Amino acid sequence: MNIKNNNIAELEKVCQDIRERILEVVSKNGGHLSSTLGATEIIVAMHKVFDSEENPFIFDVSHQAYAHKLLTGRWLEFESLRQFGGLSGYTKPSESKHDFFVAGHSSTSISLGVGAAKSIALKGQSNTRVPIALIGDGSLTAGMVYEAMNELGDLKLPLIIILNDNEMSIAKPIGAISRVLSSAMAGPFYQKFRNHTKHFLENFGEGAHYIGKRLEESLKLITPGLMFEEMGIEYIGPIDGHNLTSLIETLEKAKALNKPVIIHAQTLKGKGYEIAEGQHEKWHGVGPFDRKSGDANKKVSSKSATQIYTEALLHLANHNEKIVGVTAAMPSGTGMSKLLETYPERFWDVAIAEQHAVTSMAAMAAEGFKPFCTIYSTFMQRAYDQVIHDICLMDLPVVLTMDRAGIVGEDGETHQGVFDVSFLRAIPNMTLLAPRDEKSFHQAMGFAASYDHPCGLRYPRGSFYENDLVESTPFVLGKSQLLRATQSNVLFIGYGNGVGRAEAAAQLMDSEMSLLDLRFVKPLDEEMLSNLSKTHKQWFVFSDTSKAGGVASALLEFLNDQNILDVSVHSFEYSDKFITHGNTTKVEESLGLLPSQLAQSVKEIIKA
Amino acid sequence: MNIKNNNIAELEKVCQDIRERILEVVSKNGGHLSSTLGATEIIVAMHKVFDSEENPFIFDVSHQAYAHKLLTGRWLEFESLRQFGGLSGYTKPSESKHDFFVAGHSSTSISLGVGAAKSIALKGQSNTRVPIALIGDGSLTAGMVYEAMNELGDLKLPLIIILNDNEMSIAKPIGAISRVLSSAMAGPFYQKFRNHTKHFLENFGEGAHYIGKRLEESLKLITPGLMFEEMGIEYIGPIDGHNLTSLIETLEKAKALNKPVIIHAQTLKGKGYEIAEGQHEKWHGVGPFDRKSGDANKKVSSKSATQIYTEALLHLANHNEKIVGVTAAMPSGTGMSKLLETYPERFWDVAIAEQHAVTSMAAMAAEGFKPFCTIYSTFMQRAYDQVIHDICLMDLPVVLTMDRAGIVGEDGETHQGVFDVSFLRAIPNMTLLAPRDEKSFHQAMGFAASYDHPCGLRYPRGSFYENDLVESTPFVLGKSQLLRATQSNVLFIGYGNGVGRAEAAAQLMDSEMSLLDLRFVKPLDEEMLSNLSKTHKQWFVFSDTSKAGGVASALLEFLNDQNILDVSVHSFEYSDKFITHGNTTKVEESLGLLPSQLAQSVKEIIKA
Repeated sequence: MNIKNNNIAELEKVCQDIRERILEVVSKNGGHLSSTLGATEIIVAMHKVFDSEENPFIFDVSHQAYAHKLLTGRWLEFESLRQFGGLSGYTKPSESKHDFFVAGHSSTSISLGVGAAKSIALKGQSNTRVPIALIGDGSLTAGMVYEAMNELGDLKLPLIIILNDNEMSIAKPIGAISRVLSSAMAGPFYQKFRNHTKHFLENFGEGAHYIGKRLEESLKLITPGLMFEEMGIEYIGPIDGHNLTSLIETLEKAKALNKPVIIHAQTLKGKGYEIAEGQHEKWHGVGPFDRKSGDANKKVSSKSATQIYTEALLHLANHNEKIVGVTAAMPSGTGMSKLLETYPERFWDVAIAEQHAVTSMAAMAAEGFKPFCTIYSTFMQRAYDQVIHDICLMDLPVVLTMDRAGIVGEDGETHQGVFDVSFLRAIPNMTLLAPRDEKSFHQAMGFAASYDHPCGLRYPRGSFYENDLVESTPFVLGKSQLLRATQSNVLFIGYGNGVGRAEAAAQLMDSEMSLLDLRFVKPLDEEMLSNLSKTHKQWFVFSDTSKAGGVASALLEFLNDQNILDVSVHSFEYSDKFITHGNTTKVEESLGLLPSQLAQSVKEIIKA
Repeated sequence: MNIKNNNIAELEKVCQDIRERILEVVSKNGGHLSSTLGATEIIVAMHKVFDSEENPFIFDVSHQAYAHKLLTGRWLEFESLRQFGGLSGYTKPSESKHDFFVAGHSSTSISLGVGAAKSIALKGQSNTRVPIALIGDGSLTAGMVYEAMNELGDLKLPLIIILNDNEMSIAKPIGAISRVLSSAMAGPFYQKFRNHTKHFLENFGEGAHYIGKRLEESLKLITPGLMFEEMGIEYIGPIDGHNLTSLIETLEKAKALNKPVIIHAQTLKGKGYEIAEGQHEKWHGVGPFDRKSGDANKKVSSKSATQIYTEALLHLANHNEKIVGVTAAMPSGTGMSKLLETYPERFWDVAIAEQHAVTSMAAMAAEGFKPFCTIYSTFMQRAYDQVIHDICLMDLPVVLTMDRAGIVGEDGETHQGVFDVSFLRAIPNMTLLAPRDEKSFHQAMGFAASYDHPCGLRYPRGSFYENDLVESTPFVLGKSQLLRATQSNVLFIGYGNGVGRAEAAAQLMDSEMSLLDLRFVKPLDEEMLSNLSKTHKQWFVFSDTSKAGGVASALLEFLNDQNILDVSVHSFEYSDKFITHGNTTKVEESLGLLPSQLAQSVKEIIKA
C-alpha cells in the first residue's frame, strides 16, 4: 500500500482500516493486540515519511509490527497470522524485503540500529538512508539498550529511535526508568512555559538570554529528555503518538537532524478497541476472542503446567519463609502474579532484566534464602553467563524454573524453549530435572525446595500429556522412576513431558516395551540405566529438547563411559533446525512427533 | 589486620605497606596491578568504616581487591597469589569468610548488592548491615548494571556503591558514559561555587533560596550526578579517592543515609608505582616484571595464537573492505588493537558490552558486511542469546573468533574457556571450527572470511602445541584432515589445540595409531569418520573443551545415528568440575592432561 501521497484525513482512514483488520484477524487467530493497536499511527507515519525498502525499519520485539505487515503487501496473507505455514507474528526477512530483521526477544533494536548506522556510514549512504528503530518503554529496562546507547552517543551516527511509551510494558511499569519517563506527563505544559519565557527574555538582550538558557536547563530536569541527552542522544518530546500530523512533522525534523535522536511518543495501549484500551497485561497477547464481549473463545482445557507451578510454589512459600523468587516481566505468563500479590516482600518482578534477575537471586541464596528464578526457557539464554558465573561457580541453591520448555506454538522460532538442556548440562554443579505430570511437578518442586545446590526444572507450555501410568513417587537426587518393566528388548525413556508423549505412542503399538521416567538428566540414574542396558538393547528417547547435547546425548556419554557398546539409542528430540510457528500439534506433526507418527517410526526402526 | 582504631597517619602507613606488598608479589607472580594500586585507599577506608565479616563487601570483577585480601588475614599467603594451590586473583568465599562472592566477569556487583540489600531487609537487619559495592568506571558500560540500578532506584533499599573512576577502564574510556563521568573534572570548582552562592543567597530569605535551588539544579547539569539521581540513587562526589579523610567521612555519611547512594571517587590507576601511574591498558594485568625498570621478566616465547589471529585478520582486511570487526574492551588481549589503529572506521571497541557487540555486528552482516566478533570464549557466554536470536536465526555470516579457549592459567575458574562447543553446537545454522597451528589458523580464517553463514572459531591462550606433522591444507566445510593413517586399531582425534596435544602424547608411545585433525566439530566429516570407524575401533578424543556436550559427545551422536556400535570413544576433554587457577602446565597436570600422562592413560585403556 503506497501512502506516500495521502493527506492526513486519508491516513487517518488507513489507520482505521488497519485497526479493523488487526481486530478481525487477531480475534480469530489470537496474537499480540494492545501494543500493535497502540502503535498504528506511529507506523503509518514511519511509512509516510520513509521508504521501508530503502531504510532499515527495526521493530523491537516486533510484536507491535502488524501495521507494518499490512502496509507492505501482506493485507490478504494477514489472514494466516501465526498459523502454521502462514505469516509470522514477528518481522521476518524471509517473509518480506520490508522486514530488516527478525525479532522476538526484546531490546535488540538499538544495537541493530547502531550496526545499520555504521553500515550506512561505511557505504557512504548517509544522505539517503537512515535506520529507524521503534521501541516500547518496557524494552528500556534491559541492559542491552544502554550498551547500544553508550556507543551511539559516542559515535553520533544518524539513527532515529521512536520510543513508544504506553507506560505499560507487558505487565506494569517497573523501576526507575519508568518513573523518569512518566515525569514527562507534565511535559507539554513546561514546553509551553519554556517557549513563553524564552520569547519574553529575548527582548532583554544577552544577559537575559543567559538566564533563559539556565532556566531552560533547570526545566529539563523535569522532563525525561535529560537522561538521553546526557548520553549524547538528541531528545524530542513527549509528543502525542496518535496525532499523525505531529508524528509526521517530528519524523521529518528528526530526518533532517542527521544525528542520533530519540522521539518520545506517548500512546494508549489497545487504542481503538475500547475493551482493551489502557489495560495492562491482559490484552498484551491473547488467544481468539469475541470482539463484542472481549471474552476468550477458547474453552479452558485441563490445568496448565504454569498453573501447577503457581500452586506448588505458593504451597512451598506458605511453609517456608526463606523461599523468595523473581520473574522478568512475565508475572502472568510464568504464573508468578499470585506470588507477587501474596508475598510482595519476597517475590519481585524486576522487568525485562534476566541477567539482573539471576545474579540478584544468587546473592539472596548466599544470604541464606531459597530463590526460585522463573524465566521462560528461551529467555534463560539471556542469563547464561550469570547462571555459570554467579550461581554454579558459587554452588548456590538457586532454582531455575523454566516455563515454555519445548515447542511454544504460535510465537514460533524466536520463542521455542529447546536449548536449555544442551547449554545447562555442561555447567558443573548444575542439577537438571523435569516433572511429567501434576503430581510429579509437586514432588519435583519439593525436591528443588530442599536441595542445597543449583538446579534447573523445565516444564511445557500448556498442559502435560495425560496418562494412566503408575503414580509418581517422591523425587530423589539422580533417581529415575521405572514406570513399566517388561521382558521386551525395547526401552522407552521419557524426560519431562516426553514421558507422556512416550506413553501415548506406546498405547498405539502392538508390541510391548519398558518405560522409564528419567526425571534427572543430570545426574543420570547410572544404576538403573546400567541394569536396563543388560536386558534392553533398543532405547528410544522422548524429550522436548534439542538433540545436539540433549538428553540422548547425555545417555550416549554415559553408555560410552561405561563401555556399554551394544545398546542403540534413537532420539526423538528436535533435529538441528529452527522450529517454525503455528499450532503446536501441526508443528509437531511437521516434525513427526505426534504419537501416531512416533509409534510408526518406532515400529520401522525395530523391524529394521 | 584490625585497622578500626587507627588514625589517618597510621592508615596512610597501612596503604603504603599494602602497595609495597602488592608490588613485591605481583612483580614476581604477575597479576592485576594498576586498578588494585589505585583502589588501595578506598578499600582501607571501607575496612575502617565497615566490618567485612558483617557487611557484604562486593568487588566488581574483583581484580582490584588485593588490598582487601591483605587486610583480611591473607598477608603471608598473598605470596602464593594466582599460583596453583595458592590464593586466587579474585575474591573467593572458600578462601575467606570476608569474601562475600566470586567475581571475575564484570558488572555483576550492583545486582549482587541489590540481592544482598533485599536479604538484609527481609531479615530485619537494616540497622546493622549494609552491602558495599566497589565498581570501576569501565564496568559501567555493561547493561547489567542498568538493569540493577533500575530496580534499586525503585526499591530504594540501602546500598552503598563506590564508583572507582580512574577514567581508564581496561583500555581507554569509551562511550557516552565515560564522557558523562569526565565532565566531573570540573566538579570540585563548581561544588565550591555552589556552596558560596548558597551561603550568599541564604541571607536574602525565601525568594533567593528558590533561585539558589534552581541554580543548584542547573549546575548539576555539568556534574555526572544527575544521571544517577534521575534513576533514584543519591549521588555524592566527585571526591578524591586517595584522600583517606575524605573517603572515611563520605562513607560515614553514606552509611547514615540509609538509602541507595553512589560515591564517585576519582583515582589514579597505578597510584604509588610511578612507572604504571596513569598508564592505560599496559599495566592492567601483567606478568612478572622488574620493579626498577618496569620491564617484563618473561622471555618472549613462540608466537601466540592471538598474534597469529591479528596477522591473519589484518591480511584479510587489507584485501576485503567488507571485513569489519569488534572487540568488547579487550583490544590488546584479543589482538584487535592493530586493527583498530589501521582501520578505525571498520573496527570498533564497544567497551564491556558483549550483547551489543554481537547484535550490532549481526546488523552489519545483514547490510552486506563480513563481521568478526572477537570475544574471549568465557565472555561469549554473555552474548549467548544474541548469537542464537540475532545471528543464527537470521543465518548471517558473522564470525565469532574466540580467544582464550581452553585453560587460561592464572585467571582461573571464572575465565576458563571450556563451554563454547557445548553451548554453540546446539544452535542451528552454526558452524564450528578450530585451527591447530599457525598455518591452519590462516587457512581457517580464510575459510571463515568467505563462508556465508555463522561460524565460531576457537583458539587457545598462548601458543599452539608445536609439532612436525604434515602441513595443513586449505579448510573445506565439514572436512577433516587425516594426518597419519596406520593399520592400527587406534585413532587419535584432535580438535584445535588438541591436535598438537594428541601428537605430543603419540610421540611418547611405543605403539602406533592414526591421527585425525577434526577441524570441524559442526558439521562433522561424516564420510571420513564413517570410513575410519571400519578400521579403527578405539577412538581417543583430545580437545580443550567440556566433555558434556563437547567434541566426543558430537562424535557419539554421529556414531549412534549411523548405527555404528562397535567403536569405543575415550574423551580427554574436561570433566564436570570448575577448573582452578595456576600455571597452565600445573593445572593440566592436576587433570592428567600432560602428554606423558595422556600417553600412560591411553596405554592402560588399550591394554584393558
